[in-house]
Amino acid sequence: MNETDKQQLRIGSTQFDETSKGVYLITVTPFKSDGELDLESTDRLIDFYLQAGANGLTVLGVMGEAPKLTAHESAEYVRRVLARVNGRVPVVVGASAAGFASMGELTKRVMDLGAAGVMVAPVAGLRTDDQIRAYFSMVNETLGPDVPWVLQDHPNATGVQMSASVVMQVIDQSPRCVMLKHEDCPGLGKLSSIRAAQAQKTLKQVSILTGNGGGLFLPEELMRGADGAMTGFAYPEMMVDVIEAHCAGDQDRAFDLFDAYLPLSRYEQQPGIGLAVRKYILAKRGAIASATVRKPGPALSKLDIEDIERLIRRQQQRLTQLG
Amino acid sequence: MNETDKQQLRIGSTQFDETSKGVYLITVTPFKSDGELDLESTDRLIDFYLQAGANGLTVLGVMGEAPKLTAHESAEYVRRVLARVNGRVPVVVGASAAGFASMGELTKRVMDLGAAGVMVAPVAGLRTDDQIRAYFSMVNETLGPDVPWVLQDHPNATGVQMSASVVMQVIDQSPRCVMLKHEDCPGLGKLSSIRAAQAQKTLKQVSILTGNGGGLFLPEELMRGADGAMTGFAYPEMMVDVIEAHCAGDQDRAFDLFDAYLPLSRYEQQPGIGLAVRKYILAKRGAIASATVRKPGPALSKLDIEDIERLIRRQQQRLTQLG
Amino acid sequence: MNETDKQQLRIGSTQFDETSKGVYLITVTPFKSDGELDLESTDRLIDFYLQAGANGLTVLGVMGEAPKLTAHESAEYVRRVLARVNGRVPVVVGASAAGFASMGELTKRVMDLGAAGVMVAPVAGLRTDDQIRAYFSMVNETLGPDVPWVLQDHPNATGVQMSASVVMQVIDQSPRCVMLKHEDCPGLGKLSSIRAAQAQKTLKQVSILTGNGGGLFLPEELMRGADGAMTGFAYPEMMVDVIEAHCAGDQDRAFDLFDAYLPLSRYEQQPGIGLAVRKYILAKRGAIASATVRKPGPALSKLDIEDIERLIRRQQQRLTQLG
Amino acid sequence: MNETDKQQLRIGSTQFDETSKGVYLITVTPFKSDGELDLESTDRLIDFYLQAGANGLTVLGVMGEAPKLTAHESAEYVRRVLARVNGRVPVVVGASAAGFASMGELTKRVMDLGAAGVMVAPVAGLRTDDQIRAYFSMVNETLGPDVPWVLQDHPNATGVQMSASVVMQVIDQSPRCVMLKHEDCPGLGKLSSIRAAQAQKTLKQVSILTGNGGGLFLPEELMRGADGAMTGFAYPEMMVDVIEAHCAGDQDRAFDLFDAYLPLSRYEQQPGIGLAVRKYILAKRGAIASATVRKPGPALSKLDIEDIERLIRRQQQRLTQLG
Repeated sequence: MNETDKQQLRIGSTQFDETSKGVYLITVTPFKSDGELDLESTDRLIDFYLQAGANGLTVLGVMGEAPKLTAHESAEYVRRVLARVNGRVPVVVGASAAGFASMGELTKRVMDLGAAGVMVAPVAGLRTDDQIRAYFSMVNETLGPDVPWVLQDHPNATGVQMSASVVMQVIDQSPRCVMLKHEDCPGLGKLSSIRAAQAQKTLKQVSILTGNGGGLFLPEELMRGADGAMTGFAYPEMMVDVIEAHCAGDQDRAFDLFDAYLPLSRYEQQPGIGLAVRKYILAKRGAIASATVRKPGPALSKLDIEDIERLIRRQQQRLTQLG
Repeated sequence: MNETDKQQLRIGSTQFDETSKGVYLITVTPFKSDGELDLESTDRLIDFYLQAGANGLTVLGVMGEAPKLTAHESAEYVRRVLARVNGRVPVVVGASAAGFASMGELTKRVMDLGAAGVMVAPVAGLRTDDQIRAYFSMVNETLGPDVPWVLQDHPNATGVQMSASVVMQVIDQSPRCVMLKHEDCPGLGKLSSIRAAQAQKTLKQVSILTGNGGGLFLPEELMRGADGAMTGFAYPEMMVDVIEAHCAGDQDRAFDLFDAYLPLSRYEQQPGIGLAVRKYILAKRGAIASATVRKPGPALSKLDIEDIERLIRRQQQRLTQLG
Repeated sequence: MNETDKQQLRIGSTQFDETSKGVYLITVTPFKSDGELDLESTDRLIDFYLQAGANGLTVLGVMGEAPKLTAHESAEYVRRVLARVNGRVPVVVGASAAGFASMGELTKRVMDLGAAGVMVAPVAGLRTDDQIRAYFSMVNETLGPDVPWVLQDHPNATGVQMSASVVMQVIDQSPRCVMLKHEDCPGLGKLSSIRAAQAQKTLKQVSILTGNGGGLFLPEELMRGADGAMTGFAYPEMMVDVIEAHCAGDQDRAFDLFDAYLPLSRYEQQPGIGLAVRKYILAKRGAIASATVRKPGPALSKLDIEDIERLIRRQQQRLTQLG
Repeated sequence: MNETDKQQLRIGSTQFDETSKGVYLITVTPFKSDGELDLESTDRLIDFYLQAGANGLTVLGVMGEAPKLTAHESAEYVRRVLARVNGRVPVVVGASAAGFASMGELTKRVMDLGAAGVMVAPVAGLRTDDQIRAYFSMVNETLGPDVPWVLQDHPNATGVQMSASVVMQVIDQSPRCVMLKHEDCPGLGKLSSIRAAQAQKTLKQVSILTGNGGGLFLPEELMRGADGAMTGFAYPEMMVDVIEAHCAGDQDRAFDLFDAYLPLSRYEQQPGIGLAVRKYILAKRGAIASATVRKPGPALSKLDIEDIERLIRRQQQRLTQLG
């Protein structure tokens, strides 16, 4: 096993099914400073994520700048990720699409390439419960009986509000839905009510990974029964460490670790500019060659960078104190 | 009975309950050219509406510029309308409000003054079926057992999409909801499915008046079982005449009449500028003294007025041909 | 010249530039009853449009179900259209895309295949004037100096409101923007103010084709200086005839023709269900083999079809009367 | 000077004008457990805020449940606040209203009662720069030359996005606009560009108080030149302390203090449930008698309360460590 095949799995497992636990990282897509797709950095980034202890990866999500890629680039990027991962962890591919024909085509292609499953959010414009249920009937028909998939509940990105009861109905009507990506906010009550239904056996089991802003509510979500996180943060080890402490029953340490990173994770979660912050840090940490966000995208100012550097400095001090 | 007590009721009745039929006019609110509330024109306008054959009036709706009135003006205006109507037809008052305290206070006041009932639309921001049902539970609690009310389904104005099934659930959970103001668009299928449920006795009876843009689909809506219209148009006699022909079984005449007015009703239904068009014509017809729309509101250009005058001229010719 | 090469051009020309006049038809995309792309019907439909007198075609617009096609199907469809048109009229391709890389790729491909230009609407989510101007700077950079393009102002579809002044700034900053597709509603005032600026030479000349709902305001828009229409309607000859009468100075006939079709064009313009209405009529007229709308899409009920048949019958009578 | 007249002003001043600095607290509105307005708690709460070092108060904002009050209750509440404050600090009253008549009426009434000024946000629905500028022209006309006012830039609540350039244009066209409540997020860049314009004398001076989520970016905003904060948080002393440390040049202490409160302020900033969290803590601290949020409003679950208590406990430990 060569260097890139090592993975520091410390929590959960690498199974992708309704028992999944741990951290699925939403990957960024690396670009060179001229805006070209950077496939070499892709390799480096994958290794960085796996060495941080990722249990899985999710590619072509919103924070992956998927809509800015051409169809050809998307394919090339997914192929590269899957080749580099080489089966070490499951890779989930975002398959939300404006039409079912595209969703079906993309799904077939990535499953053939070795993806573990796909992730689907409700299409923008759905409003009523009836519309949402009907939409996911068509999703099930499109994906078919062989593709396990993640239901993404992310109203801030999609504009679609799914009540807890609708989320549960969609899960129930979807035999191959194995995971919920929970990123409604506020979402703690929703999470608790879904877990309660599962405890009472009125809802089948699915894995629930939370995605609220870089894990901005991670320790509370774990207390409510989340199985882990599916999100991105320039310090993915924070999520791994917090979950590890939580699972070891050391809640104080889980909160202490979380709090140490919170000033920076808060800053990285600013809408719009957040991705530029994340890429700046990933580049600084050597995980990617360039912090470039493809146009149209934000650029950091000198003052922004001063903010980030200050936050990193303070975070290091705090982590040193914690030991 | 003096002059103002005459009313030319030609269709339906003047009862306000689940058996109501005919035309409820959404009244405009007259202002003087300096923007002051014009109470004398209010009297004149009420007479104009009743002489056109209105079965009821609805005041303080969106097209009544309700949000532009002070609380004091609102009260004064409603009092004047009720005094002038003097029991000849039922008056429904728009009671949609950001808060239940205000809704309750307004409802009590107008019912004490002699209103027949109130109209309530879902508050902006409601999204899921659960939220909508919960909201109308609170509406029922707020209005109490004595106030008959109209459910207004107007997604273009509120942003709230209610599926046919939710509309029916709200009707069923609301003992005093006696009428549906149907102004979803497209809404013909929704109307048919609600009528089908009532035919099958799975839904209690309510009156359904349609409000789509000055009755822009009135003859088709009548064919689907609507009881009439609740909307505004500068020629309210069009709606009365169309419904009369429809009820007399003369569908061809109903459509002919409707078509004769359609070029103008289409023009009057332009979002934004429509109210200025309506008031221009009402002033021209002598129903109000000034066409003033209170600020912030649109003003007609010379070219707009040329359009309107041309449409009126052509409409007259067409009506003359029809006889 | 074989049968399919005939085109009944009665108005305007077939140039695609800032002097374009007449009717650019927004094409539907034909599907077989099983949902497959129907390329044979595509040929038939193109002939139908050209025989109706179209001055140009616009493909892959919203009403063309573009988002429901796979990338491969899109390419195949555009290739087929261009082959069948065979240079008889210009073909504009909708190139609005979530990202500039896709927009550039699509544009290059269709221009290589023989498209006359592309059409671009502002991406959903743009709000401020600064954002809109910056977006179209990037559009210009993406399309380059050789591709003439149409600015699509369609707030109902995009959610982006462009004031008249911003539309004019975008036109001014875009050397290759040759046409405005004007489908803001209400839009008569906006149209007049843009034409006024051009009359005063403070804005460069562009062709303005209007797209408001199947031409629902076409005669008024022509009076305000529109050069024609870019929209779809199951009776494209209406738009050709109205413009012909208008250009011949016979305004009464222009309005008479328009009014004869208005009850049906109004019905076809219902949001959601409208495309199913249009395809039903096109299939009935033999222009396409099947009225199928690809999922997710509306289906017509028996009552809807009764409505449409009644409207067609009445329209025929009216046209017969007009002569 | 009796007990209630004491105020612990430690930072800034109590002037309300373009030189204002410090903390303006967005007050909650206390209700009894049965939902009635609680005027006794109002007195207690005012004292609590002033003893925490508030430089001013803002009432009838969104977090003050203003829309849930009747007109009468609003008036009573404002009168009580003004009486209790008794001139010790300026009180700003939220005057955003759907119509200018109501805005003018409310403004006149509260200014007569002793308010220092009003706060106005753009009305929902404004989209283009032209619309926004025109709206604030009418605001200026409505408020007149004697009423100093705060421009509230809060897109999350209003849906209105104002670019930095439009904010500056509104400030420039508004002689009596003395303060900007800055709560766009991300807003650091906007803040910097407004301050830069003022430094270059291309924009007149106004006070800038930030309102992002309980001060969730307070120390960074102070570094960018903010004059303080106008927001609510159950521990208002945090904001006072952070600003004091910042002004004393002790940035490390400013950040340390801020970080100690951040886990809780983050939790309190959850949309929807946040106000219930804030009132729970204020009740626990004895500032109000009941944590009741008026309907429709969220209620805390047992698990929510466990979260809050844990966060309070940890916050106390952290503050003790800091000294």
